Amino acid sequence: MTAELLNGREIAKDYRAGLQSEVEKLKSQGIVPNLTVVIVGNDGASLSYVRSKNKAAEKIGMESSIVRLDEDTSEEEVLATVEKLNNDDKVNGILVQVPLPAQVDENKVLEAIAPHKDVDGFSPINIGRLYTGQRTFVPCTPLGIMELLKHTGSLEGKSVAVIGRSHIVGQPVAKLLTNENATVTLMHSRTKNMVAQLKDFDVVVSAVGKPGLIKGSDLKEGAIVIDVGNTVVDEKLVGDIDFESAKEVASYITPVPGGVGPLTITMVLNNTLLAAKWHNEGK
Amino acid sequence: MTAELLNGREIAKDYRAGLQSEVEKLKSQGIVPNLTVVIVGNDGASLSYVRSKNKAAEKIGMESSIVRLDEDTSEEEVLATVEKLNNDDKVNGILVQVPLPAQVDENKVLEAIAPHKDVDGFSPINIGRLYTGQRTFVPCTPLGIMELLKHTGSLEGKSVAVIGRSHIVGQPVAKLLTNENATVTLMHSRTKNMVAQLKDFDVVVSAVGKPGLIKGSDLKEGAIVIDVGNTVVDEKLVGDIDFESAKEVASYITPVPGGVGPLTITMVLNNTLLAAKWHNEGK
Repeated sequence: MTAELLNGREIAKDYRAGLQSEVEKLKSQGIVPNLTVVIVGNDGASLSYVRSKNKAAEKIGMESSIVRLDEDTSEEEVLATVEKLNNDDKVNGILVQVPLPAQVDENKVLEAIAPHKDVDGFSPINIGRLYTGQRTFVPCTPLGIMELLKHTGSLEGKSVAVIGRSHIVGQPVAKLLTNENATVTLMHSRTKNMVAQLKDFDVVVSAVGKPGLIKGSDLKEGAIVIDVGNTVVDEKLVGDIDFESAKEVASYITPVPGGVGPLTITMVLNNTLLAAKWHNEGK
Repeated sequence: MTAELLNGREIAKDYRAGLQSEVEKLKSQGIVPNLTVVIVGNDGASLSYVRSKNKAAEKIGMESSIVRLDEDTSEEEVLATVEKLNNDDKVNGILVQVPLPAQVDENKVLEAIAPHKDVDGFSPINIGRLYTGQRTFVPCTPLGIMELLKHTGSLEGKSVAVIGRSHIVGQPVAKLLTNENATVTLMHSRTKNMVAQLKDFDVVVSAVGKPGLIKGSDLKEGAIVIDVGNTVVDEKLVGDIDFESAKEVASYITPVPGGVGPLTITMVLNNTLLAAKWHNEGK
């Protein structure tokens, strides 16, 4: 068997085209969705990631800006910046790039973002709304994974191994998969004989960051394989799954790069569009 | 094999004795923990449950009161009542008994409880804090289940089947078990061949409400079995697990009644004590 490729770049491109036409509709009503990203410090990788989010927003017709703060900015100043954006009626989506410098309490800052502008979906109240089935912003990587999985058919009744228990990826994607009536096993570094168990699962979502952790021979024939790993090895992005051997066994597989990554940024745009829509509901 | 009984009444009694001595310590500092329960309407079962919470609080030296509102109370009035309790410095813990009458939006009311008084841990912000590893009030039934499981040894590396995906029991207990380095599979009504899979699991937590769903022959030899089911059959409380056959296979088992139930109310008291402590921190 040779797996069908879940081409994140193609899928993201189509999805963004849909977003773009929705942005145009909003603009014709005088609403311009705005995404503002706050970055503290000068980390090159973070900065280039932030810029790529902004470019992507502008490319589909949104307004976008970056607020840059010095590495030594106090927590009070960061919180004041967030508060100002909360009160700025033109700003729909606020992202604060993490990690933040040591003097700034990340949880405090994320909790300070107004829930209706928290397009990353990382503030506790929005996470709580996700778990209680209320309307919320779903974190972008899990949402992107679900979009990829839509291309593989129904998840109802499927057994899924989610590897990695972070609140950014593993936990929320487990929740979204459960919502789709899949049966999810949440695995992690302390799971016994983890790789050996994977043969029992219809779907494997790996978000660990260990290149080559999973090989084709570890997978069930016909498994759907989503690789969220992205580790830099010899200046190249590498996933958790050995693509060459896995593609001979899987029915669907994501490449790294070009799999989950493009969908994550797409879902930032998706959530910013929702924020603009929700903000203008009933106006 | 005959399983060891996880006697909820005994374990709760010991735990409450510990709480009582902590309450006495607080009182000697002039702090009297107060639990206030709001109930809307005249449902007999709810009322008797609310009264048992209050009695339990008073028995360990806490102050406790019930605010009773008529069945036809408007949402605004319920919200105003919650707001008054939020601002009452003497009240540490607020419980709103659910379900609420149809004219009152339950999510709105739960979200209105001040997070530092939400001893049920049902408000979205507290649920979000649970999933992001912050200090919070953990929902009482899951917390009670974890207390029972402490009597069975370490959960590290164990495989656990949690059956039922509610945000009151299944989801949060899955999270707490994952925190203890167990590997959790969250099962539900759409899980294929659910009962047949249970033989693979070291621990089974069932929160379904189907009497006799699981029999001894469905379990792994030596499994730990927690029965959260409580269905009224012929005026008796019955769990999900066929106790007589299961106790011959399990290593530990909870009875129904007298298993998880007493721990749930105990954890309401536990959380009220925490609320009083946290409120007075640094004073």
